Amino acid sequence: MSLMDYLNIKKKIIDNYLNILLPYSTSEPVIYEAMRYSLFCGGKRIRPILCLMVCDMLGGNEDEFLPFACSIEMIHTYSLIHDDLPGMDNDDFRRGNPSNHKVYGEGYAILAGDALLNKAFEIMMTTITNTPESRFIHATKEICTASGLNGMIGGQAIDLYYENKHISADMLDRMHEQKTGALICASLNSGSLIANATYEDFKIISNFGKLIGKAFQITDDILDITSTTEKLGKPVGSDKEKQKSTYVSFYGLEESKVLANKLIDDAKTLISPFPNNQKFIELADYIINREK
Amino acid sequence: MSLMDYLNIKKKIIDNYLNILLPYSTSEPVIYEAMRYSLFCGGKRIRPILCLMVCDMLGGNEDEFLPFACSIEMIHTYSLIHDDLPGMDNDDFRRGNPSNHKVYGEGYAILAGDALLNKAFEIMMTTITNTPESRFIHATKEICTASGLNGMIGGQAIDLYYENKHISADMLDRMHEQKTGALICASLNSGSLIANATYEDFKIISNFGKLIGKAFQITDDILDITSTTEKLGKPVGSDKEKQKSTYVSFYGLEESKVLANKLIDDAKTLISPFPNNQKFIELADYIINREK
Repeated sequence: MSLMDYLNIKKKIIDNYLNILLPYSTSEPVIYEAMRYSLFCGGKRIRPILCLMVCDMLGGNEDEFLPFACSIEMIHTYSLIHDDLPGMDNDDFRRGNPSNHKVYGEGYAILAGDALLNKAFEIMMTTITNTPESRFIHATKEICTASGLNGMIGGQAIDLYYENKHISADMLDRMHEQKTGALICASLNSGSLIANATYEDFKIISNFGKLIGKAFQITDDILDITSTTEKLGKPVGSDKEKQKSTYVSFYGLEESKVLANKLIDDAKTLISPFPNNQKFIELADYIINREK
Repeated sequence: MSLMDYLNIKKKIIDNYLNILLPYSTSEPVIYEAMRYSLFCGGKRIRPILCLMVCDMLGGNEDEFLPFACSIEMIHTYSLIHDDLPGMDNDDFRRGNPSNHKVYGEGYAILAGDALLNKAFEIMMTTITNTPESRFIHATKEICTASGLNGMIGGQAIDLYYENKHISADMLDRMHEQKTGALICASLNSGSLIANATYEDFKIISNFGKLIGKAFQITDDILDITSTTEKLGKPVGSDKEKQKSTYVSFYGLEESKVLANKLIDDAKTLISPFPNNQKFIELADYIINREK
Protein backbone atom coordinates (compact mmCIF):
# COMPACT_ATOMS: atom_id res chain seq x y z
CA MET A 1 0.00 0.00 0.00
CA SER A 2 1.30 3.46 -0.85
CA LEU A 3 2.04 5.85 2.02
CA MET A 4 -0.74 8.18 0.85
CA ASP A 5 -3.30 5.35 0.90
CA TYR A 6 -2.05 4.29 4.32
CA LEU A 7 -2.28 7.87 5.69
CA ASN A 8 -5.77 8.26 4.22
CA ILE A 9 -7.01 5.05 5.78
CA LYS A 10 -5.59 6.02 9.18
CA LYS A 11 -6.97 9.53 8.87
CA LYS A 12 -10.45 8.12 8.27
CA ILE A 13 -10.16 5.83 11.28
CA ILE A 14 -9.10 8.77 13.43
CA ASP A 15 -11.77 11.12 12.09
CA ASN A 16 -14.37 8.47 12.70
CA TYR A 17 -13.19 7.93 16.28
CA LEU A 18 -12.99 11.66 16.97
CA ASN A 19 -16.60 11.89 15.83
CA ILE A 20 -17.57 9.26 18.36
CA LEU A 21 -15.57 10.93 21.15
CA LEU A 22 -16.90 14.39 20.43
CA PRO A 23 -20.27 14.12 18.71
CA TYR A 24 -22.27 17.22 18.00
CA SER A 25 -24.34 18.06 21.05
CA THR A 26 -27.45 20.18 21.20
CA SER A 27 -26.93 20.93 24.91
CA GLU A 28 -24.40 23.80 24.66
CA PRO A 29 -24.58 24.13 20.89
CA VAL A 30 -22.01 26.84 20.20
CA ILE A 31 -19.14 25.42 22.27
CA TYR A 32 -19.50 21.98 20.68
CA GLU A 33 -19.69 23.57 17.25
CA ALA A 34 -16.58 25.65 17.95
CA MET A 35 -14.65 22.61 19.18
CA ARG A 36 -15.68 20.50 16.22
CA TYR A 37 -15.01 23.33 13.74
CA SER A 38 -11.29 23.30 14.53
CA LEU A 39 -11.08 19.56 15.17
CA PHE A 40 -12.46 18.75 11.71
CA CYS A 41 -10.82 21.58 9.81
CA GLY A 42 -8.41 19.74 7.56
CA GLY A 43 -5.75 18.54 10.00
CA LYS A 44 -3.27 16.03 8.55
CA ARG A 45 -3.56 13.92 11.76
CA ILE A 46 0.20 13.36 11.75
CA ARG A 47 0.38 12.99 15.55
CA PRO A 48 -2.37 10.40 16.03
CA ILE A 49 -1.18 8.55 12.93
CA LEU A 50 2.30 8.28 14.49
CA CYS A 51 0.71 6.64 17.53
CA LEU A 52 -1.17 4.14 15.34
CA MET A 53 1.98 3.46 13.30
CA VAL A 54 3.71 2.25 16.45
CA CYS A 55 0.79 -0.12 16.96
CA ASP A 56 1.26 -1.44 13.42
CA MET A 57 5.03 -1.75 13.74
CA LEU A 58 5.24 -3.32 17.20
CA GLY A 59 1.93 -5.14 17.05
CA GLY A 60 -1.11 -4.28 19.11
CA ASN A 61 -4.86 -3.79 19.17
CA GLU A 62 -5.57 -0.47 17.44
CA ASP A 63 -8.70 0.08 19.55
CA GLU A 64 -6.47 0.47 22.59
CA PHE A 65 -4.37 3.18 20.90
CA LEU A 66 -7.19 5.25 19.47
CA PRO A 67 -8.34 7.05 22.65
CA PHE A 68 -4.78 8.25 23.23
CA ALA A 69 -4.10 9.08 19.58
CA CYS A 70 -7.31 11.14 19.45
CA SER A 71 -6.59 12.84 22.77
CA ILE A 72 -3.26 14.00 21.36
CA GLU A 73 -5.04 15.42 18.32
CA MET A 74 -7.44 17.30 20.61
CA ILE A 75 -4.52 18.74 22.56
CA HIS A 76 -2.82 19.74 19.32
CA THR A 77 -6.04 21.38 18.11
CA TYR A 78 -6.56 23.34 21.33
CA SER A 79 -3.02 24.68 21.07
CA LEU A 80 -3.68 25.93 17.53
CA ILE A 81 -6.93 27.65 18.57
CA HIS A 82 -5.21 29.47 21.44
CA ASP A 83 -2.11 30.21 19.34
CA ASP A 84 -4.24 31.96 16.71
CA LEU A 85 -5.93 34.28 19.25
CA PRO A 86 -5.29 38.03 18.93
CA GLY A 87 -3.44 37.98 22.27
CA MET A 88 -1.07 35.33 20.90
CA ASP A 89 -0.15 35.07 17.18
CA ASN A 90 -3.26 36.90 15.94
CA ASP A 91 -3.77 34.69 12.88
CA ASP A 92 -6.97 35.09 10.91
CA PHE A 93 -6.54 31.89 8.92
CA ARG A 94 -5.68 28.30 9.69
CA ARG A 95 -5.53 25.55 7.10
CA GLY A 96 -7.23 27.78 4.53
CA ASN A 97 -10.20 28.57 6.76
CA PRO A 98 -10.95 31.45 9.12
CA SER A 99 -9.44 30.70 12.51
CA ASN A 100 -11.71 29.74 15.39
CA HIS A 101 -12.06 33.18 16.98
CA LYS A 102 -12.87 34.73 13.59
CA VAL A 103 -15.89 32.43 13.35
CA TYR A 104 -17.05 32.11 16.98
CA GLY A 105 -15.48 35.12 18.69
CA GLU A 106 -12.66 35.20 21.20
CA GLY A 107 -14.73 34.02 24.16
CA TYR A 108 -15.77 30.77 22.51
CA ALA A 109 -12.31 30.25 21.03
CA ILE A 110 -10.77 30.44 24.51
CA LEU A 111 -13.40 28.09 25.94
CA ALA A 112 -13.28 25.68 22.98
CA GLY A 113 -9.51 25.39 23.49
CA ASP A 114 -9.90 24.83 27.23
CA ALA A 115 -12.63 22.29 26.57
CA LEU A 116 -10.52 20.31 24.06
CA LEU A 117 -7.61 20.07 26.50
CA ASN A 118 -9.94 19.01 29.29
CA LYS A 119 -11.77 16.54 27.02
CA ALA A 120 -8.47 14.90 26.12
CA PHE A 121 -7.78 14.22 29.78
CA GLU A 122 -11.33 13.00 30.34
CA ILE A 123 -10.96 10.50 27.51
CA MET A 124 -7.68 9.17 28.84
CA MET A 125 -9.04 9.02 32.40
CA THR A 126 -12.07 7.09 31.15
CA THR A 127 -9.73 4.51 29.66
CA ILE A 128 -7.69 4.33 32.87
CA THR A 129 -10.83 4.06 35.01
CA ASN A 130 -12.17 1.21 32.87
CA THR A 131 -8.81 -0.52 32.42
CA PRO A 132 -6.39 0.58 35.15
CA GLU A 133 -3.33 -0.93 33.49
CA SER A 134 0.12 0.51 34.00
CA ARG A 135 0.71 1.05 30.26
CA PHE A 136 -2.35 3.30 29.95
CA ILE A 137 -1.40 5.23 33.07
CA HIS A 138 2.11 5.81 31.78
CA ALA A 139 0.87 6.79 28.32
CA THR A 140 -1.43 9.39 29.90
CA LYS A 141 1.40 10.72 32.06
CA GLU A 142 3.63 10.95 28.98
CA ILE A 143 1.03 12.96 27.06
CA CYS A 144 0.29 15.22 30.07
CA THR A 145 3.95 16.04 30.52
CA ALA A 146 4.49 16.68 26.81
CA SER A 147 1.64 19.16 26.65
CA GLY A 148 2.68 21.07 29.78
CA LEU A 149 5.30 23.51 30.98
CA ASN A 150 8.22 21.20 30.17
CA GLY A 151 6.70 20.56 26.75
CA MET A 152 4.31 22.38 24.48
CA ILE A 153 3.11 25.20 26.74
CA GLY A 154 6.70 25.90 27.81
CA GLY A 155 7.61 26.15 24.12
CA GLN A 156 4.76 28.56 23.48
CA ALA A 157 5.95 30.64 26.43
CA ILE A 158 9.46 30.80 24.95
CA ASP A 159 7.95 31.79 21.60
CA LEU A 160 5.96 34.58 23.24
CA TYR A 161 8.93 35.78 25.27
CA TYR A 162 11.18 36.13 22.22
CA GLU A 163 8.64 37.94 20.06
CA ASN A 164 10.55 40.90 18.60
CA LYS A 165 13.63 39.91 20.64
CA HIS A 166 16.87 38.28 19.54
CA ILE A 167 16.81 34.50 20.06
CA SER A 168 19.89 32.26 20.02
CA ALA A 169 20.08 29.17 17.81
CA ASP A 170 20.07 26.99 20.94
CA MET A 171 16.97 28.65 22.29
CA LEU A 172 15.25 28.39 18.90
CA ASP A 173 15.99 24.65 18.99
CA ARG A 174 14.66 24.32 22.50
CA MET A 175 11.56 26.34 21.66
CA HIS A 176 10.68 24.01 18.78
CA GLU A 177 11.66 20.87 20.68
CA GLN A 178 9.07 21.85 23.26
CA LYS A 179 6.45 23.57 21.13
CA THR A 180 6.21 21.01 18.31
CA GLY A 181 8.63 18.23 19.14
CA ALA A 182 7.30 17.23 22.55
CA LEU A 183 3.81 16.27 21.35
CA ILE A 184 5.18 14.49 18.25
CA CYS A 185 7.46 12.48 20.54
CA ALA A 186 4.60 11.81 22.94
CA SER A 187 2.55 10.43 20.05
CA LEU A 188 5.23 7.81 19.46
CA ASN A 189 6.10 7.33 23.13
CA SER A 190 2.51 6.76 24.20
CA GLY A 191 2.23 4.23 21.36
CA SER A 192 5.34 2.42 22.57
CA LEU A 193 4.03 2.36 26.14
CA ILE A 194 0.63 0.99 25.09
CA ALA A 195 2.39 -1.62 22.92
CA ASN A 196 4.49 -2.67 25.93
CA ALA A 197 7.71 -1.92 24.03
CA THR A 198 11.07 -2.79 25.60
CA TYR A 199 12.94 0.16 27.05
CA GLU A 200 15.46 -0.08 24.21
CA ASP A 201 12.78 0.03 21.52
CA PHE A 202 11.04 2.87 23.36
CA LYS A 203 14.25 4.94 23.26
CA ILE A 204 14.92 4.31 19.56
CA ILE A 205 11.38 5.23 18.56
CA SER A 206 11.49 8.27 20.84
CA ASN A 207 14.76 9.49 19.31
CA PHE A 208 13.30 8.90 15.85
CA GLY A 209 10.51 11.24 16.98
CA LYS A 210 12.95 13.94 18.04
CA LEU A 211 14.67 13.86 14.64
CA ILE A 212 11.53 13.92 12.52
CA GLY A 213 9.99 16.52 14.85
CA LYS A 214 12.84 18.91 14.16
CA ALA A 215 12.80 18.12 10.43
CA PHE A 216 9.04 18.76 10.46
CA GLN A 217 9.57 22.21 11.95
CA ILE A 218 12.40 23.14 9.58
CA THR A 219 10.19 22.07 6.66
CA ASP A 220 7.38 24.26 8.01
CA ASP A 221 9.78 27.19 8.03
CA ILE A 222 10.94 26.38 4.49
CA LEU A 223 7.36 26.06 3.20
CA ASP A 224 6.53 29.43 4.69
CA ILE A 225 9.01 30.85 2.12
CA THR A 226 8.74 28.50 -0.85
CA SER A 227 5.11 27.38 -0.96
CA THR A 228 2.06 29.22 -2.23
CA THR A 229 -0.77 30.63 -0.11
CA GLU A 230 -3.15 28.29 -1.91
CA LYS A 231 -1.17 25.14 -1.09
CA LEU A 232 -0.33 26.21 2.46
CA GLY A 233 -3.81 27.36 3.43
CA LYS A 234 -2.35 30.47 5.08
CA PRO A 235 -0.42 33.46 3.76
CA VAL A 236 3.17 32.62 2.81
CA GLY A 237 5.86 34.79 4.34
CA SER A 238 3.85 35.25 7.54
CA ASP A 239 6.87 34.33 9.70
CA LYS A 240 8.90 37.12 8.13
CA GLU A 241 6.04 39.57 8.41
CA LYS A 242 5.80 38.83 12.14
CA GLN A 243 9.61 39.06 12.44
CA LYS A 244 9.67 35.49 13.76
CA SER A 245 13.02 33.79 14.07
CA THR A 246 12.91 30.62 11.99
CA TYR A 247 15.45 28.02 10.88
CA VAL A 248 15.45 29.69 7.48
CA SER A 249 16.13 33.15 8.93
CA PHE A 250 19.00 31.61 10.91
CA TYR A 251 20.63 29.23 8.45
CA GLY A 252 19.28 30.37 5.10
CA LEU A 253 17.09 28.32 2.75
CA GLU A 254 19.72 25.95 1.32
CA GLU A 255 21.40 25.08 4.61
CA SER A 256 17.98 24.51 6.17
CA LYS A 257 17.17 22.00 3.44
CA VAL A 258 20.49 20.22 4.02
CA LEU A 259 19.84 20.15 7.75
CA ALA A 260 16.32 18.71 7.33
CA ASN A 261 17.64 16.04 4.95
CA LYS A 262 20.38 15.08 7.39
CA LEU A 263 17.87 14.72 10.23
CA ILE A 264 15.63 12.50 8.10
CA ASP A 265 18.58 10.32 7.05
CA ASP A 266 19.55 9.89 10.70
CA ALA A 267 15.95 9.06 11.61
CA LYS A 268 15.76 6.40 8.90
CA THR A 269 19.06 4.84 10.03
CA LEU A 270 17.81 4.78 13.60
CA ILE A 271 14.58 2.96 12.76
CA SER A 272 16.22 0.56 10.27
CA PRO A 273 16.70 -2.40 12.67
CA PHE A 274 12.93 -2.78 13.16
CA PRO A 275 11.08 -5.25 10.97
CA ASN A 276 7.86 -3.73 9.57
CA ASN A 277 9.46 -0.28 9.57
CA GLN A 278 8.48 0.55 5.98
CA LYS A 279 5.84 3.15 6.81
CA PHE A 280 8.19 4.87 9.26
CA ILE A 281 10.80 5.20 6.52
CA GLU A 282 8.25 6.48 4.02
CA LEU A 283 6.75 8.91 6.51
CA ALA A 284 10.17 10.30 7.33
CA ASP A 285 10.69 11.11 3.64
CA TYR A 286 7.17 12.53 3.36
CA ILE A 287 7.82 14.97 6.19
CA ILE A 288 10.43 16.90 4.22
CA ASN A 289 8.86 16.41 0.78
CA ARG A 290 5.32 17.54 1.60
CA GLU A 291 3.91 20.68 0.03
CA LYS A 292 1.79 21.83 2.95
CA MET B 1 -10.68 25.67 67.48
CA SER B 2 -12.70 28.44 65.84
CA LEU B 3 -13.65 28.05 62.19
CA MET B 4 -11.46 31.01 61.24
CA ASP B 5 -8.42 29.47 62.95
CA TYR B 6 -9.17 26.15 61.26
CA LEU B 7 -9.52 27.79 57.84
CA ASN B 8 -6.30 29.75 58.36
CA ILE B 9 -4.33 26.64 59.31
CA LYS B 10 -5.67 24.74 56.30
CA LYS B 11 -5.00 27.71 54.01
CA LYS B 12 -1.37 27.78 55.15
CA ILE B 13 -0.98 24.05 54.54
CA ILE B 14 -2.43 24.47 51.05
CA ASP B 15 -0.35 27.56 50.22
CA ASN B 16 2.76 25.76 51.38
CA TYR B 17 1.99 22.72 49.23
CA LEU B 18 1.12 24.86 46.19
CA ASN B 19 4.51 26.48 46.60
CA ILE B 20 6.17 23.07 46.46
CA LEU B 21 4.10 21.99 43.46
CA LEU B 22 4.69 25.19 41.52
CA PRO B 23 7.90 26.81 42.70
CA TYR B 24 9.21 29.87 40.96
CA SER B 25 11.34 28.80 38.02
CA THR B 26 13.97 30.81 36.23
CA SER B 27 13.62 28.70 33.06
CA GLU B 28 10.58 30.40 31.49
CA PRO B 29 10.38 33.23 33.98
CA VAL B 30 7.31 35.12 32.83
CA ILE B 31 4.93 32.17 32.51
CA TYR B 32 5.82 30.88 35.99
CA GLU B 33 5.43 34.38 37.39
CA ALA B 34 2.04 34.79 35.70
CA MET B 35 0.82 31.42 37.01
CA ARG B 36 2.02 32.16 40.54
CA TYR B 37 0.62 35.69 40.48
CA SER B 38 -2.94 34.44 40.20
CA LEU B 39 -2.38 31.32 42.29
CA PHE B 40 -1.16 33.36 45.26
CA CYS B 41 -3.43 36.35 44.82
CA GLY B 42 -5.63 36.10 47.90
CA GLY B 43 -7.81 33.09 47.13
CA LYS B 44 -9.87 31.82 50.06
CA ARG B 45 -8.93 28.21 49.17
CA ILE B 46 -12.52 27.09 49.83
CA ARG B 47 -12.34 24.22 47.34
CA PRO B 48 -9.11 22.58 48.52
CA ILE B 49 -10.16 23.16 52.15
CA LEU B 50 -13.40 21.24 51.45
CA CYS B 51 -11.29 18.33 50.22
CA LEU B 52 -9.14 18.38 53.38
CA MET B 53 -12.27 18.69 55.56
CA VAL B 54 -13.49 15.37 54.22
CA CYS B 55 -10.14 13.91 55.25
CA ASP B 56 -10.62 15.29 58.76
CA MET B 57 -14.23 14.12 59.02
CA LEU B 58 -13.87 10.62 57.58
CA GLY B 59 -10.30 10.04 58.68
CA GLY B 60 -7.32 9.84 56.37
CA ASN B 61 -3.75 10.86 55.71
CA GLU B 62 -3.80 14.53 54.66
CA ASP B 63 -0.69 14.09 52.50
CA GLU B 64 -2.73 11.87 50.19
CA PHE B 65 -5.42 14.53 49.75
CA LEU B 66 -3.16 17.52 49.17
CA PRO B 67 -2.12 16.85 45.54
CA PHE B 68 -5.79 16.62 44.57
CA ALA B 69 -6.90 19.56 46.71
CA CYS B 70 -4.16 21.72 45.17
CA SER B 71 -4.93 20.52 41.65
CA ILE B 72 -8.51 21.67 42.13
CA GLU B 73 -7.27 25.10 43.26
CA MET B 74 -5.11 25.33 40.12
CA ILE B 75 -8.09 24.46 37.94
CA HIS B 76 -10.20 27.06 39.76
CA THR B 77 -7.45 29.66 39.29
CA TYR B 78 -7.06 28.94 35.57
CA SER B 79 -10.81 29.39 35.10
CA LEU B 80 -10.65 32.82 36.78
CA ILE B 81 -7.72 33.94 34.61
CA HIS B 82 -9.53 32.96 31.42
CA ASP B 83 -12.87 34.32 32.68
CA ASP B 84 -11.32 37.76 33.25
CA LEU B 85 -9.92 38.00 29.69
CA PRO B 86 -11.27 40.75 27.42
CA GLY B 87 -12.82 38.09 25.15
CA MET B 88 -14.75 36.69 28.12
CA ASP B 89 -15.88 38.86 31.08
CA ASN B 90 -13.28 41.59 30.51
CA ASP B 91 -12.60 42.20 34.21
CA ASP B 92 -9.68 44.43 35.13
CA PHE B 93 -9.66 43.44 38.79
CA ARG B 94 -9.77 40.21 40.75
CA ARG B 95 -9.56 40.00 44.52
CA GLY B 96 -8.53 43.65 44.73
CA ASN B 97 -5.61 43.26 42.34
CA PRO B 98 -5.23 43.83 38.61
CA SER B 99 -6.32 40.70 36.77
CA ASN B 100 -3.70 38.49 35.15
CA HIS B 101 -3.87 39.92 31.62
CA LYS B 102 -3.64 43.48 32.98
CA VAL B 103 -0.26 42.57 34.49
CA TYR B 104 1.20 40.10 31.98
CA GLY B 105 -0.78 40.78 28.82
CA GLU B 106 -3.36 38.59 27.12
CA GLY B 107 -0.88 36.13 25.62
CA TYR B 108 0.63 35.14 28.94
CA ALA B 109 -2.77 35.13 30.64
CA ILE B 110 -4.06 32.61 28.08
CA LEU B 111 -0.91 30.48 28.46
CA ALA B 112 -0.81 30.76 32.26
CA GLY B 113 -4.40 29.49 32.37
CA ASP B 114 -3.64 26.63 29.99
CA ALA B 115 -0.53 25.79 32.00
CA LEU B 116 -2.40 25.70 35.33
CA LEU B 117 -5.01 23.32 33.93
CA ASN B 118 -2.32 21.12 32.44
CA LYS B 119 -0.24 21.24 35.63
CA ALA B 120 -3.23 20.07 37.66
CA PHE B 121 -3.50 16.97 35.50
CA GLU B 122 0.25 16.40 35.64
CA ILE B 123 0.15 16.49 39.44
CA MET B 124 -2.72 14.01 39.63
CA MET B 125 -1.08 11.74 37.03
CA THR B 126 2.16 11.79 39.01
CA THR B 127 0.23 10.53 42.03
CA ILE B 128 -1.47 7.85 39.97
CA THR B 129 1.80 6.79 38.35
CA ASN B 130 3.49 6.48 41.75
CA THR B 131 0.51 4.92 43.50
CA PRO B 132 -1.86 3.40 40.95
CA GLU B 133 -4.70 2.87 43.42
CA SER B 134 -8.31 2.89 42.31
CA ARG B 135 -9.25 5.69 44.74
CA PHE B 136 -6.71 8.09 43.20
CA ILE B 137 -7.78 7.16 39.69
CA HIS B 138 -11.43 7.78 40.50
CA ALA B 139 -10.65 11.06 42.26
CA THR B 140 -8.79 12.26 39.17
CA LYS B 141 -11.64 11.18 36.91
CA GLU B 142 -14.10 13.02 39.17
CA ILE B 143 -12.08 16.26 39.00
CA CYS B 144 -11.55 15.96 35.21
CA THR B 145 -15.26 15.54 34.60
CA ALA B 146 -16.19 18.41 36.92
CA SER B 147 -13.90 20.82 35.13
CA GLY B 148 -15.03 19.85 31.63
CA LEU B 149 -17.98 20.26 29.29
CA ASN B 150 -20.45 18.63 31.67
CA GLY B 151 -19.09 20.77 34.49
CA MET B 152 -17.28 24.07 34.74
CA ILE B 153 -16.47 24.75 31.08
CA GLY B 154 -20.03 23.83 30.10
CA GLY B 155 -21.24 26.35 32.68
CA GLN B 156 -18.96 29.04 31.30
CA ALA B 157 -20.30 28.28 27.81
CA ILE B 158 -23.88 28.72 29.05
CA ASP B 159 -22.85 31.99 30.72
CA LEU B 160 -21.30 33.24 27.48
CA TYR B 161 -24.28 32.15 25.41
CA TYR B 162 -26.79 34.04 27.56
CA GLU B 163 -24.82 37.29 27.72
CA ASN B 164 -27.37 40.00 26.92
CA LYS B 165 -30.02 37.31 26.33
CA HIS B 166 -32.97 36.29 28.48
CA ILE B 167 -32.16 33.28 30.65
CA SER B 168 -34.76 31.14 32.42
CA ALA B 169 -34.52 30.42 36.17
CA ASP B 170 -33.86 26.75 35.36
CA MET B 171 -31.02 27.60 33.01
CA LEU B 172 -29.55 30.04 35.54
CA ASP B 173 -29.56 27.19 38.06
CA ARG B 174 -27.94 24.83 35.62
CA MET B 175 -25.34 27.41 34.64
CA HIS B 176 -24.26 27.89 38.25
CA GLU B 177 -24.47 24.17 39.08
CA GLN B 178 -21.93 23.60 36.34
CA LYS B 179 -19.84 26.78 36.52
CA THR B 180 -19.34 26.93 40.29
CA GLY B 181 -21.13 23.93 41.76
CA ALA B 182 -19.37 21.16 39.86
CA LEU B 183 -15.88 21.95 41.13
CA ILE B 184 -17.11 22.54 44.70
CA CYS B 185 -18.79 19.12 44.58
CA ALA B 186 -15.69 17.57 43.04
CA SER B 187 -13.62 18.94 45.94
CA LEU B 188 -15.80 16.98 48.36
CA ASN B 189 -16.29 13.97 46.08
CA SER B 190 -12.57 13.52 45.41
CA GLY B 191 -12.02 13.72 49.18
CA SER B 192 -14.64 11.02 49.76
CA LEU B 193 -13.08 8.80 47.11
CA ILE B 194 -9.57 9.18 48.53
CA ALA B 195 -10.96 8.46 52.02
CA ASN B 196 -12.61 5.30 50.70
CA ALA B 197 -16.04 6.51 51.82
CA THR B 198 -19.02 4.19 51.53
CA TYR B 199 -21.32 4.94 48.61
CA GLU B 200 -23.95 6.21 51.04
CA ASP B 201 -21.55 8.64 52.72
CA PHE B 202 -20.26 9.73 49.31
CA LYS B 203 -23.80 10.64 48.21
CA ILE B 204 -24.62 12.58 51.40
CA ILE B 205 -21.40 14.60 51.23
CA SER B 206 -21.91 15.19 47.51
CA ASN B 207 -25.46 16.46 48.05
CA PHE B 208 -24.18 18.67 50.87
CA GLY B 209 -21.82 20.10 48.24
CA LYS B 210 -24.64 20.81 45.81
CA LEU B 211 -26.57 22.74 48.47
CA ILE B 212 -23.65 24.83 49.75
CA GLY B 213 -22.47 25.37 46.17
CA LYS B 214 -25.77 26.99 45.24
CA ALA B 215 -25.86 28.98 48.50
CA PHE B 216 -22.30 30.13 47.77
CA GLN B 217 -23.36 31.47 44.37
CA ILE B 218 -26.48 33.19 45.69
CA THR B 219 -24.34 34.83 48.38
CA ASP B 220 -21.90 36.01 45.70
CA ASP B 221 -24.81 37.63 43.88
CA ILE B 222 -26.05 39.22 47.10
CA LEU B 223 -22.59 40.55 47.99
CA ASP B 224 -22.30 42.09 44.53
CA ILE B 225 -25.18 44.37 45.64
CA THR B 226 -24.69 44.77 49.38
CA SER B 227 -20.93 44.75 49.94
CA THR B 228 -18.37 47.51 49.39
CA THR B 229 -15.72 47.58 46.67
CA GLU B 230 -13.08 47.58 49.41
CA LYS B 231 -14.36 44.44 51.09
CA LEU B 232 -15.12 42.64 47.84
CA GLY B 233 -11.85 43.46 46.07
CA LYS B 234 -13.76 44.24 42.88
CA PRO B 235 -16.31 46.89 41.95
CA VAL B 236 -19.74 46.24 43.49
CA GLY B 237 -22.66 46.24 41.09
CA SER B 238 -20.53 44.75 38.30
CA ASP B 239 -23.15 42.07 37.57
CA LYS B 240 -25.81 44.71 36.99
CA GLU B 241 -23.47 46.82 34.89
CA LYS B 242 -22.79 43.81 32.65
CA GLN B 243 -26.52 43.03 32.55
CA LYS B 244 -25.83 39.61 34.03
CA SER B 245 -28.75 37.58 35.22
CA THR B 246 -28.21 36.76 38.90
CA TYR B 247 -30.29 35.18 41.63
CA VAL B 248 -30.86 38.66 42.99
CA SER B 249 -32.06 40.01 39.64
CA PHE B 250 -34.43 37.03 39.43
CA TYR B 251 -35.77 36.71 42.96
CA GLY B 252 -34.91 40.07 44.55
CA LEU B 253 -32.58 40.62 47.49
CA GLU B 254 -34.80 39.41 50.32
CA GLU B 255 -36.04 36.25 48.64
CA SER B 256 -32.47 35.43 47.65
CA LYS B 257 -31.41 35.64 51.29
CA VAL B 258 -34.29 33.37 52.33
CA LEU B 259 -33.34 30.90 49.60
CA ALA B 260 -29.66 30.84 50.63
CA ASN B 261 -30.62 30.31 54.28
CA LYS B 262 -32.94 27.45 53.36
CA LEU B 263 -30.19 25.75 51.35
CA ILE B 264 -27.74 26.04 54.23
CA ASP B 265 -30.31 24.66 56.71
CA ASP B 266 -30.89 21.69 54.43
CA ALA B 267 -27.14 21.16 54.04
CA LYS B 268 -26.64 21.14 57.81
CA THR B 269 -29.48 18.66 58.29
CA LEU B 270 -27.99 16.42 55.64
CA ILE B 271 -24.55 16.32 57.23
CA SER B 272 -25.88 16.00 60.81
CA PRO B 273 -25.61 12.18 61.10
CA PHE B 274 -21.80 12.29 60.73
CA PRO B 275 -19.67 12.38 63.87
CA ASN B 276 -16.93 15.03 63.61
CA ASN B 277 -19.15 17.16 61.38
CA GLN B 278 -18.64 20.37 63.37
CA LYS B 279 -16.47 22.16 60.80
CA PHE B 280 -18.91 21.25 58.02
CA ILE B 281 -21.74 22.84 60.01
CA GLU B 282 -19.69 25.95 60.77
CA LEU B 283 -18.48 26.28 57.18
CA ALA B 284 -22.04 26.05 55.89
CA ASP B 285 -22.97 29.02 58.09
CA TYR B 286 -19.83 30.90 57.06
CA ILE B 287 -20.71 30.58 53.37
CA ILE B 288 -23.79 32.78 53.71
CA ASN B 289 -22.40 35.07 56.42
CA ARG B 290 -19.09 36.00 54.77
CA GLU B 291 -18.42 39.56 53.68
CA LYS B 292 -16.31 38.76 50.60
